[in-house]
Amino acid sequence: MPREFILFSRLGRTDSNFSNLHDAGRLDIVYECTVAGLFLSHGIRKNATLHAALNGPPKPPLHIEINGERLFNVRTDLDTWQNIFKRILAGKQHPGITIDRTSFESLLKTKAENSRVYILEESGKDIAHADLEANSVFVLGDHVGLPRKAEIYALRYGEKISLGKQPYLAASCITILNYLMDRQIKSDF
Amino acid sequence: MPREFILFSRLGRTDSNFSNLHDAGRLDIVYECTVAGLFLSHGIRKNATLHAALNGPPKPPLHIEINGERLFNVRTDLDTWQNIFKRILAGKQHPGITIDRTSFESLLKTKAENSRVYILEESGKDIAHADLEANSVFVLGDHVGLPRKAEIYALRYGEKISLGKQPYLAASCITILNYLMDRQIKSDF
Repeated sequence: MPREFILFSRLGRTDSNFSNLHDAGRLDIVYECTVAGLFLSHGIRKNATLHAALNGPPKPPLHIEINGERLFNVRTDLDTWQNIFKRILAGKQHPGITIDRTSFESLLKTKAENSRVYILEESGKDIAHADLEANSVFVLGDHVGLPRKAEIYALRYGEKISLGKQPYLAASCITILNYLMDRQIKSDF
Repeated sequence: MPREFILFSRLGRTDSNFSNLHDAGRLDIVYECTVAGLFLSHGIRKNATLHAALNGPPKPPLHIEINGERLFNVRTDLDTWQNIFKRILAGKQHPGITIDRTSFESLLKTKAENSRVYILEESGKDIAHADLEANSVFVLGDHVGLPRKAEIYALRYGEKISLGKQPYLAASCITILNYLMDRQIKSDF
């Protein structure tokens, strides 16, 4: 079951001028979501793609796409990904990672043409009652959540879905979603 | 539903003589499991406890217990926990964290007196068919897995359980287990 995740990063830095990911508008959360989205033990998930929609200074928007099918030469540690993000944001290349000026809105619109879109929110419909399909696209915010305007826009193309009453970290949401997709939800439970 | 996790760390360093967690016998995995086990978005899980059974040089065994109910003054970032582990392993204190010479075996034996013990393994019984209870104790290995001898010992006190066919990272297993405990498994699915 292929799946994609779109992380809306409100302040994620859009150039390589930073000394660590945390201070770069919480690009450390993008890193944590990358590991949660794309890594298994001793391997990369070929069926997952992570999109980070960066909206921080100096030149938003910026769209980073990390594709598990083509990604290689990576590990799960922070230093590896700090170097990769720095290089990518400086215009260099890494296999499986692309960067462009696509906005969150136009990315979502394109994805909605061929996929079901779910917006993660605690108040949404319980995921236990949703029929998740292959190629589902899950939209999440970082530590400050999805801005109201982005959420209203996203709701044109998808529906709110909830993992339950606990407020999980963004990376934990992705790990759980990967698990639920792996288990194809209700067929297994 | 209170729950505990026991991470068997085969080479986790047992003093504070290291420059980073990765090179300290993969204490970075203990860090990742700590975040997965004890953190929600903007808060600490009061219902979770993580045990790390360290078996690396120079003075194994060492048992670190991190208790969500008493833990405070922490964040989820690597630097915070690198400092905490260094301080703890140098004999200093941090609220909610204890360190002692309990071995994996005697820890497990004690826990089994009052709790159901599950050993995570891909070949185990499917968790979808298990009746998870409050106070469950989950045993996991780090990137090299549970040593055969530790597994045989653990099976005296618990049963093998599986999250499915995917080989998840140790921290991902903990995130998923927390989720399944939060949702009380089958009652919700």
